[in-house]
Amino acid sequence: MSSPTSAAVRLTDILPTAGPGEIQAWLRSVAGPAERRHQVSRLSRAELRRLGEVLDGRTAEILLESLDDELAARAVTAMDAAVAATLLAGLDTDHATDILREMRAPARDSVLSAMPADRSEALRRVLEWPRESAAAHMIPEALAITSELTVADAVEQLRRDAVELRVDAHTSAYIYVTDRDRRLLGVAAFRDLVLADPGRHVSELMNDDLLWVSPLTDAEEAAQALEDHNLVAVPVVDADMRLLGILTQSTAAEIAEEEATEDAERQGGSEPLDMPYLRASPWHLWRKRIGWLLLLFVAEAYTGTVLRHFEEEMEAVVALAFFIPLLIGTGGNTGTQITTTLVRALATGDVRFRDVPSIVAKELSTGMLIALTMALAAVIRAWTLGVGPEVTLCVSLTIGAIVLWSSFIASILPPLLKKCRLDPALVSAPAIATIVDGTGLIIYFWIAHLTLAQLQGL
Amino acid sequence: MSSPTSAAVRLTDILPTAGPGEIQAWLRSVAGPAERRHQVSRLSRAELRRLGEVLDGRTAEILLESLDDELAARAVTAMDAAVAATLLAGLDTDHATDILREMRAPARDSVLSAMPADRSEALRRVLEWPRESAAAHMIPEALAITSELTVADAVEQLRRDAVELRVDAHTSAYIYVTDRDRRLLGVAAFRDLVLADPGRHVSELMNDDLLWVSPLTDAEEAAQALEDHNLVAVPVVDADMRLLGILTQSTAAEIAEEEATEDAERQGGSEPLDMPYLRASPWHLWRKRIGWLLLLFVAEAYTGTVLRHFEEEMEAVVALAFFIPLLIGTGGNTGTQITTTLVRALATGDVRFRDVPSIVAKELSTGMLIALTMALAAVIRAWTLGVGPEVTLCVSLTIGAIVLWSSFIASILPPLLKKCRLDPALVSAPAIATIVDGTGLIIYFWIAHLTLAQLQGL
Repeated sequence: MSSPTSAAVRLTDILPTAGPGEIQAWLRSVAGPAERRHQVSRLSRAELRRLGEVLDGRTAEILLESLDDELAARAVTAMDAAVAATLLAGLDTDHATDILREMRAPARDSVLSAMPADRSEALRRVLEWPRESAAAHMIPEALAITSELTVADAVEQLRRDAVELRVDAHTSAYIYVTDRDRRLLGVAAFRDLVLADPGRHVSELMNDDLLWVSPLTDAEEAAQALEDHNLVAVPVVDADMRLLGILTQSTAAEIAEEEATEDAERQGGSEPLDMPYLRASPWHLWRKRIGWLLLLFVAEAYTGTVLRHFEEEMEAVVALAFFIPLLIGTGGNTGTQITTTLVRALATGDVRFRDVPSIVAKELSTGMLIALTMALAAVIRAWTLGVGPEVTLCVSLTIGAIVLWSSFIASILPPLLKKCRLDPALVSAPAIATIVDGTGLIIYFWIAHLTLAQLQGL
Repeated sequence: MSSPTSAAVRLTDILPTAGPGEIQAWLRSVAGPAERRHQVSRLSRAELRRLGEVLDGRTAEILLESLDDELAARAVTAMDAAVAATLLAGLDTDHATDILREMRAPARDSVLSAMPADRSEALRRVLEWPRESAAAHMIPEALAITSELTVADAVEQLRRDAVELRVDAHTSAYIYVTDRDRRLLGVAAFRDLVLADPGRHVSELMNDDLLWVSPLTDAEEAAQALEDHNLVAVPVVDADMRLLGILTQSTAAEIAEEEATEDAERQGGSEPLDMPYLRASPWHLWRKRIGWLLLLFVAEAYTGTVLRHFEEEMEAVVALAFFIPLLIGTGGNTGTQITTTLVRALATGDVRFRDVPSIVAKELSTGMLIALTMALAAVIRAWTLGVGPEVTLCVSLTIGAIVLWSSFIASILPPLLKKCRLDPALVSAPAIATIVDGTGLIIYFWIAHLTLAQLQGL
């Protein structure tokens, strides 16, 4: 890629004496957003304040776009309120509100108050929507024209609006057509308007078959709909169909990335960190992780009860204990393979609740094949440990039974959670392993009773 | 969202007698791409062939966009070659090549041969690039103008090109500026050209500070760069800087989604399925899963060797066996929380290899907090099982030690794999659990020797 390879200049070294030109040169010399993020994250409050004073508008925009919202909020909070207001007023509404949301209320209010009234009002309107809603992520500056205009008048109006609304490649993809009360009627492409006969009316050119979302639509669902329909933007309209703003593909991609990160963290048996890893403190990590660890510990503690219940069996045939980690480990692994695949397929919409019968049928068939393979592997392993034919039979039967049991549980839990409106990612790898551990031990000792002569009297 | 709520009409019912109008009506009546996918996936070969005959161009485009590439390839393969050629020639180059890649070579060749020569040649040129490269995902129809044109001439040329190249909102975001040999010089916005004084030259308006990628850049890296820089498209240029095509944000989002799915599947201890879950056969699932299961089985089998080695200890204090699943389970859970967070942070570029010291420091600090909490939980659990103070001490010390050990291993493995140019997602939840299981048992019996009076002689 076309990025310079080394970052000889360090921001912290040049800051004390730099002017806007040096900062621009630094920005160009730095290899990619990750390195910028890294260098900015190491600046002190005083340095961040100084940075605000020497940034020009365009450089600030590029720099703040490289940062994650939380780091950008920290930088902006450190700056003088008037400086911060100028920088934020210059950003896309969507990006500015993302940063403002991460700031503490007093700092946010003082920055908003230092902005021109119309700009701060536009930002406040978006900030009012709940964080998880589509409206919270929209850009209010949609290009809109009324349907009764002629093409010539529409193009003339758009030329003026395009400058005033500071539209970019993301926001200018579609032109929305409304009535005089800003009620959405259809959509047109800037290109089509330019190419059309100037005397025709906009209503003749527009396409009235379009997808829209309500302001309170879940942001993740709206983003998924936009990707599914392969759109560059989707309009957000209120209950009266009045156009409030647009959700762009670039925002949708950000939402999808955050969602994938949250799902990955849940799948790993942790609460989502909700902040970049490198800036999470050990206390923060502890808080996000300890709840699940303790819950899993309590669930797993059940295995101790099961084992104490079968104490006599283990004393009679101590070789049974050798295979405990192997058997429950394999059960957990089989289940984890299935749940991770299903959680992802549910997230991308590939699989829905009504597919449960075909999922279970598929997983039990696959489970049979895997059970046979693993039983064979278990025979080989038991033979190399030299535990005798009875224990070998017991271990092979058990591994097959545990694989099938684990396949069944793992194939119904994720869709079931989705049906109950819970996040399927809660069936994490540790959770499915824990569920299979205790139940797998019961299966093990039950099969041991059936197959081992020494246990018949117990 | 604005989708009709019920799908009363089923494609398979209307197909025998339907004309293009009925298919359009069906498409509008169906709630979202997932339902379309579902209904099309149930059609027989003969029904798919019939579908090809009654689809008009625009409807085919919408329908094929709702399908995943593999299903679309199956549908197109079932159709008459001439019909399939017309449908595919009408799609975006990127989408058409995605589908063609999923077809078997003979079917692909006969469809390509049935297309107009210039169209099939354009598609073949993209198909030649390796699947993982940026060029394999590009759209060759970039809008380009030469720098010495006046704004008026450029706009005139673009109006002609826009119709001929069938550009849409994705491909028309940026206008690339080249020299007469199609070497990339800069970029301009259609909007800016329309707004500018018609007598000025393109070279005065263009921005020459732009990001580009080479054809063999890894598609995932190119997609990440596009997202990082918040672009709608990025140009692909050859070694002589000649413009070959563009990679759009919509393609980048698809690449990122596929990559997240592959990572999720690897993290679950399975090879990526490389096809939609619902169409994967039990044999296919078995092939993708059994390798890892056997590898993990062999690694986990080591726990049997460890336990046989400590057979005397377990016979002396059978209560030690009660805690085996709990101790190694907690170690695996702690490790999984860390690896999943790190794998995701490495994938999004939040964390790099040089961060290893700060990762290890952070995870060991967090590990200390977690070790203390879990040791306390272990005391309570041992007390409720009534195993006496010595075993209680041993179990609490072990859980703390295993948590710290697991934190250490889990915090270095993912960045180490990345450094070795392997996918960090290979440190799956089952893999880290398996590594911690065997080593955790050694820690357990070593601590047991130090703390239990009965074991002093062994």
